[in-house]
Parts: sequence; structure tokens; C-alpha cells
Amino acid sequence: MSKQSLPNIETDFSEWYNEVVYQSTLADNAPVRGCIVIRPYGYALWELLQSILDKKIKETGHQNASFPLLIPKSFLEKEAQHVEGFSPELAVVTHAGGKELEEPLVIRPTSETIIHAMFAKWITSWRDLPLKINQWANVVRWEMRTRPFLRTTEFLWQEGHTAHETAQEAQDEAHCMLNEYIDLIENYLAIPLIRGRKSETEKFAGADTTLTMEGIMQDGKALQLGTSHILSQSFAHAFGISFQGRNGTVEYPFLTSWGVTTRLIGAVVMMHGDQKGLVMPPRIAPIQVVIIPIFKGDADKEKILNVVKSIELELKEAGIRVFLDSSTHETPGAKFYAWELKGVPVRLEVGPRDVANGCVIVADRLGLAKETIAQTQILEAVLGRLDIVHKKITERAQERLKKHFHSSGSLQEFGPILAEYNGAYQTGWCGNLVCEKKFKEYKATVRCLLSEVTFATCCVCNQKSLSDIIVAKAY
Amino acid sequence: MSKQSLPNIETDFSEWYNEVVYQSTLADNAPVRGCIVIRPYGYALWELLQSILDKKIKETGHQNASFPLLIPKSFLEKEAQHVEGFSPELAVVTHAGGKELEEPLVIRPTSETIIHAMFAKWITSWRDLPLKINQWANVVRWEMRTRPFLRTTEFLWQEGHTAHETAQEAQDEAHCMLNEYIDLIENYLAIPLIRGRKSETEKFAGADTTLTMEGIMQDGKALQLGTSHILSQSFAHAFGISFQGRNGTVEYPFLTSWGVTTRLIGAVVMMHGDQKGLVMPPRIAPIQVVIIPIFKGDADKEKILNVVKSIELELKEAGIRVFLDSSTHETPGAKFYAWELKGVPVRLEVGPRDVANGCVIVADRLGLAKETIAQTQILEAVLGRLDIVHKKITERAQERLKKHFHSSGSLQEFGPILAEYNGAYQTGWCGNLVCEKKFKEYKATVRCLLSEVTFATCCVCNQKSLSDIIVAKAY
Repeated sequence: MSKQSLPNIETDFSEWYNEVVYQSTLADNAPVRGCIVIRPYGYALWELLQSILDKKIKETGHQNASFPLLIPKSFLEKEAQHVEGFSPELAVVTHAGGKELEEPLVIRPTSETIIHAMFAKWITSWRDLPLKINQWANVVRWEMRTRPFLRTTEFLWQEGHTAHETAQEAQDEAHCMLNEYIDLIENYLAIPLIRGRKSETEKFAGADTTLTMEGIMQDGKALQLGTSHILSQSFAHAFGISFQGRNGTVEYPFLTSWGVTTRLIGAVVMMHGDQKGLVMPPRIAPIQVVIIPIFKGDADKEKILNVVKSIELELKEAGIRVFLDSSTHETPGAKFYAWELKGVPVRLEVGPRDVANGCVIVADRLGLAKETIAQTQILEAVLGRLDIVHKKITERAQERLKKHFHSSGSLQEFGPILAEYNGAYQTGWCGNLVCEKKFKEYKATVRCLLSEVTFATCCVCNQKSLSDIIVAKAY
Repeated sequence: MSKQSLPNIETDFSEWYNEVVYQSTLADNAPVRGCIVIRPYGYALWELLQSILDKKIKETGHQNASFPLLIPKSFLEKEAQHVEGFSPELAVVTHAGGKELEEPLVIRPTSETIIHAMFAKWITSWRDLPLKINQWANVVRWEMRTRPFLRTTEFLWQEGHTAHETAQEAQDEAHCMLNEYIDLIENYLAIPLIRGRKSETEKFAGADTTLTMEGIMQDGKALQLGTSHILSQSFAHAFGISFQGRNGTVEYPFLTSWGVTTRLIGAVVMMHGDQKGLVMPPRIAPIQVVIIPIFKGDADKEKILNVVKSIELELKEAGIRVFLDSSTHETPGAKFYAWELKGVPVRLEVGPRDVANGCVIVADRLGLAKETIAQTQILEAVLGRLDIVHKKITERAQERLKKHFHSSGSLQEFGPILAEYNGAYQTGWCGNLVCEKKFKEYKATVRCLLSEVTFATCCVCNQKSLSDIIVAKAY
């Protein structure tokens, strides 16, 4: 177990992030450019996120399936915007089975093209609609700069792909899934979000509309946490997806796609971590409670072990994810340190005196007041403390968002401050590309367009504003 | 819904297999060489298998993780036997991000090499052992002849990789996981197995010992259903995995790996299907019960719907996977046909007279006697019928195995019969490659070596037999 201390989170957030990811054993650098290994602790977090989201996906009427990893290059070229957007990032298989391939295959950067090719086969009548499919998969995008979880060459995600009879249904679908994502992220990951839609520049390659949700991290930079797209009709035409409508006419379906990735793990780290390491939101913590027996001598050992084992069993049976750290080659202090680094929300300490008194000490990752609780009350106390930690980190995250959130009508005014101190700025925008490019001078971008109009004029050119936007630097 | 009838299962098993896979919507051909799309019905089956096996994997102390899809080609070359075995099947990425790569990357055909590279980093002391990791992943092997589920260019699987202090522990691990597989396949998939170990010719590229389990399909051909390997020590040396032992000396761990794949879906089809289509084993059936309301006229419709909906709810709440087929554009007969094709074990029929009598008709996929059951007894009746179907298909599979299983001491005697009628032959073998090659003349191979010795002499050369073996044709 590493005893290295972490870089300063205030002054060196970026280095702190990388180090905490590695030291807490969420992930490790892989010997492949831009790739990570998601280690068991990180993967357990991903599995918990998956199980919550997968339930939501199924409850909203979607079915999981599995489509090929490899896509003929010509498929990507069928939709002009799509291929333009993804071409620079493709990994290409040119040889297989000892021979050069007649047509190169690309590793899916996303699966619209192969899934739409199948949709064309499966959809023939309005009765086949809506078709609502989801896939949990790995994708590869050859990114220039990579960071663990936030941007890696290969990443894990789910990608939903749906086809609908009407434009309205497709729109409802895209919003429905964004809402499911927001529920997951706000209520389980305890990360408050800003929702909106992407500008033409920032939207998905081939979408009419990209809905997005953005989190503002501890350092005031934005992190896009998931997107939901209403696709251009050109996909249906490019892949020949048509159906006989209710009136017997040939029609083209309206398509959506939406996804979230292992980036969510990075968001949890960046949102809640502190100088001691990770802080795991209780509802998705792989280990919610760690029990640390404190042996003073061999005489007490068996007695203490009996007590902690029975507590472990009781909590486990109540569905709590608990770990009993009964190893003897480390001091309690070293264990505290290690489990704080991993961000376990609640810690139980049981020493000889506690056993004698029938008590347990309840502590938590936030350092709130320790309590001495009767063993008979332990389940209630643990559930209560997990709830308190969830509430506290939610409040803290909301306060941070408030702290980083500003309003300003003039880029000249807020641009230099944003460039130096980060933060999210609500302002007005005319919708013009020329003005959008100005944000780049401050290393910022339009994170999203909001549905409201509170600024009458564009913060750059002073022309009429189309809608409010959020401007921020982004990961 | 397709109304095509299936090829004759007796005379044209191979064509029957392909057609039933496609028509039942388990899978579809993908527009990529040798790849399939696993459709929602097939994927639901895979998810059920996964959930059972994943629980077993975790209960036996393994943790899930995720390793990169792409592996530097040089990694595969570190273990001589391994690269020799997999070279002909590799898919190679030569270009990415618009440039030619300095070192080509292969898409993992299996992950020993990349995982062992990480093990070398993670294992430093005997305290780090055992290290027991599992990964659910996709792999790519460029096979010559492909068949849906049985052998596809890309397939889904889990691959376990473990490291141990002693040879005995590694051996115990490999046997333990084989036993878990056998429990899954025999008790949930209702497929009886023959267990043994592979010959030198057939074992995993880089293994000292490959344990295997073989199913004998309806047509008398063997299907390898999963393997568990005790790896050669050369992997630890090749990847520099060493640790400080209990006495302070530098030691090399003993490694295992083991996996099962989406081939299990193909085995379910081949083992239990009949002329009408799939027969899903009740314990893993994506839909265990289908409810078909039989409307005679509009007057009864609402009454019947109320009854079937309440039955659906009751079964769902009891944890049964139930589907209510209340569509009105198809006749009950067409629905029966379609759900038989999909192999749903139990069917409930509810017509106007049944509603009037407070009854439900219980039928099943095997065509056992229909029963008229009081609505109040429906849960019990359904559970009972699911159990009966499970028992019946288990017995039927065991009888088939018995029918296909023969013993013979002379290849000359059984070879021609095997070549013509398939079947599995227990016999003796000297262990010599020359004799092993003789089986090829009858299109058969050594499926496995058994632990018993009942034949004193080799069925080819009449020299002393090392152990009994199973000889059969294989998929």
C-alpha cells in the first residue's frame, strides 16, 4: 500500500487527480498509448453505476443487444458529417488472419453506422416501431491528449440507439434519457448538473440536436457528463431505413442516440475528492463501510474478531457493502490512511474497551464527529451515517457549483477572470460562429445553450441574444 | 414474424441450427466477416448466464476488472507457444489517428499477455497473492470457418486470470473454476458434460494442462464448452512476474486462466431444440412464461385483459420472467407458433370461457398434457410446470448422451461407425502423437483424457494405454 502523499489539491489539481486515481487503485496506466486498466476498485464502481443505469434503461422500455466491434470503413462514410467528425480518431485494422484485408475495418468509435445498417433490416412496418436498443460496449477513439477516465483511447460506455415513427417521439426519447442520466448523476453520484443543448460547433457529428449535461468540477472547469442526440434524418436515408407507415406510404424513422461513459468515474473523483484522497458517494461506494478491529494484544484478538465478524454479517445481510480489514501486518493508523485514500464513507473501529462496553465507534470520511454506539444499534447508526455523508457531499457540491457559477453580460469583462480563475459564466450569445470563436481566446467554449433568455444581447457583439449560454473551460 | 418452417432437424441438423438461431431472433448475421449481432432475445439469455456465473466468480473470491482491447504485438511474442498458437488468428491495427503506428497493435484474442504485464507491476510480495482477477470482454480471432455463436470472429466471454504462491493452489484454482462452470452448465443449462483434460495437441497455447468439459450435441458431435488452464511457468518468467517469498527469496507465481463464451448460447440451441424451434431451459429462459389471451369478440376483451394482467403481475412479483402477448393483429395460433419457435417453456392461455370459470390453461413447450388450473392456483402451477420442463429436458439430454456414448477398444472397429454416425467413443490411448493423428482419418479428435484407466491398451497401436480418452467429431 502506497504511503506517498498526494499533490496539493488546491494548487495542483491536475496532478492530484492523476495521483489519486492511481494510488487509490481505481486504475493503472496500461502499456498501450492512452489506455488505462480499470482495476477492481474502479471496476466495482462502474458495475454499481451500470446496475443502476441498466435498470433505468430497461424500465424505460429498451433492450440490450451486442453489435460488432469492427465496422467496414465504407459504413462510416455513408453519413457525411459523421465521417468528418470521427475520421481523425479512428483506429484501423488493415490485416487479419495473416492477410491484408480487402476493405479496412475500423474499431467502432460509436456504433450508429453498424446499428443503423441492422435497423434497415429489422424495420419494415410502423408496427416495428419504436425500436429501442442499448449496448454496453468498449469503443476506441484515437485522442491526442488523454487522461485516466476523462479521455482515454479506449473507454467503456453504453450507447442507446432508437428509431421512432414521429419527430416528437424521438425528441421525447432524447429528453427522457437525459432525465434518466441526470437522476443517476445527481441522486447517486451527488453531482449537481447544468443541462442544456450543444452549439452547432460542439454537437455530435451527425446530430440535429445534442442535449448535454455539464458538471462543474472543484477547480471550476466543466466536464461534459453525457449526451443525448436527436439525429439528423440523413442517417435513415443513408442507411436505407424505411418503413410502411400507417397509411401505407413509405416513411423514414426518426432516430436518437445517447451515451454515458467511464468518464463518470473521473467525475466522482474530481467532484468529491480531497487532500486525503477519494470521497465515495455512499450510494455508489464499492465499499460503504470498513470495519477496523484494533488489537492491543493477542489476548483480546479472538474476542474482538468475534464481535467485528458478527457486525460484518449483520451489515452484509442488510445489503450494505462492508469490508472487514482484519489483517495484522499493518497498524490501525496505516489502515485509516489507506481507507481514507480509497474514500470509504463510513468507518467502524472496535477495540478491546469497546468490546468490553458492547460498543462500536462510528467515524466517517468527512471527519464529522465520532460517535460511540451500542452494538445493538449499529445497523441504524451506519445507515444514518451513510445518509448524512450523502447529504453533506451533495450540499458541498452544490455550494461549489454556486461558488463557480457567475453571470455576466460582457465577455470583455468576464473573459480575463475566466481565463485566470476558471468558473462557469452564464451570458448571452447571438448564435454566431464568429462570436463563439472569441471564447477560445480565453481557453473557454460554449458548454451549452440554456432554455432561458435572461440576457438580451450577445456578450461579444451586443447583437440580439438567441438564448443564454454557459461559457467555461472544459476537460 | 417469420412463418418459414425450419429445415429438418434429423436430416439437416446444421442448416436447422443456423435457421433456428436467425428465425428465433437470437442473433442475426452482421455485415462484417464472421460476425453476428446478438439480438435482444439472445443477449437476454447471455445476461442471465452472466449474472449466475458472475455471482459464482465473486463468491469464489475473484474481482472483476477491465484491461485494454489492444495489445502491442511484441507482448504476444514474449511467450513462444502462445504467439505460435494465436498468430494465424490475429486482427492487426496498423493505422490510428490518421498515421501509421510505430508498433502494430493486435486486438486481444485472449488477454494473458497484457494482464501478466500488469501482474508484474502489482505482485511484489507473497502478501499480494493469490491475485484473482476476472474480465468480461470481447475478443477477436480470425477464424476460417465461422458459425453463429459456435465460432465467430468476435465473441463475448469472461476470462479469469489468477496468480498463486504454489503449484498446488494453482491446480486447485483451475479445478475449482471448472467445477463452477460444470454447475452452471449442468444445473442451469441442463446440458450433461464429460470432463477431462486436453491432449498436448489440443491444449491452450502456453498451458501446462488444459481442463475441459465437452457436451455431446443432438447430432452426436462434441462441443467444447469451456476450458480452465494451468499455465506454463514460462509466462511468469516471460513477463517478469516475481515476488518476495515468505523466506525472503525471489519466487515466480503459478498462473491459471479460464473462460467460457457466448458459445454457451449455441450449446443451448443444439442440445435442446426441436423441429418447432428452440427449447429454452427454464432456469435461464429470458421469458419463462408467455400469457396469451384468446379474444373471441370485443365484448370479452376487457374482461380477459384484466385477468391476464393480474396474472402477469402476480407472476412478475414472484420473480418469474413473464411476457403478456396481448397484441391483436395476430391469431392465437400464430402466437403459439412464434413462442414455440422462441422456446418459451410455459404458455398460459386464457379465453372467455376460462375467465367465466375462473380458470387458466397451462401448456408447455414440450407438449405435455394441458391442465386447466384455477386462477388462484396459478403461481404454484407455473412453478411446478417450469420444474417439470427442467427435469424433462435434463432427462432427455442425459438419454441422448447415453445414446451417443460408446466404448470400444479398437479404432479400426469404431472409426468407420464414428465417421458415419458421429457419437462419442471412450477408448484407450498410448499418448503418442502418431496414434492421435489416426483419429483425423475419421474426422475425429481426442476431445479429452479421462482420469480413469479402463482400457489397458491403445485403440490404435495396442501399446499400453496412458488413460482413457473420448474420441469424437467436434464443432
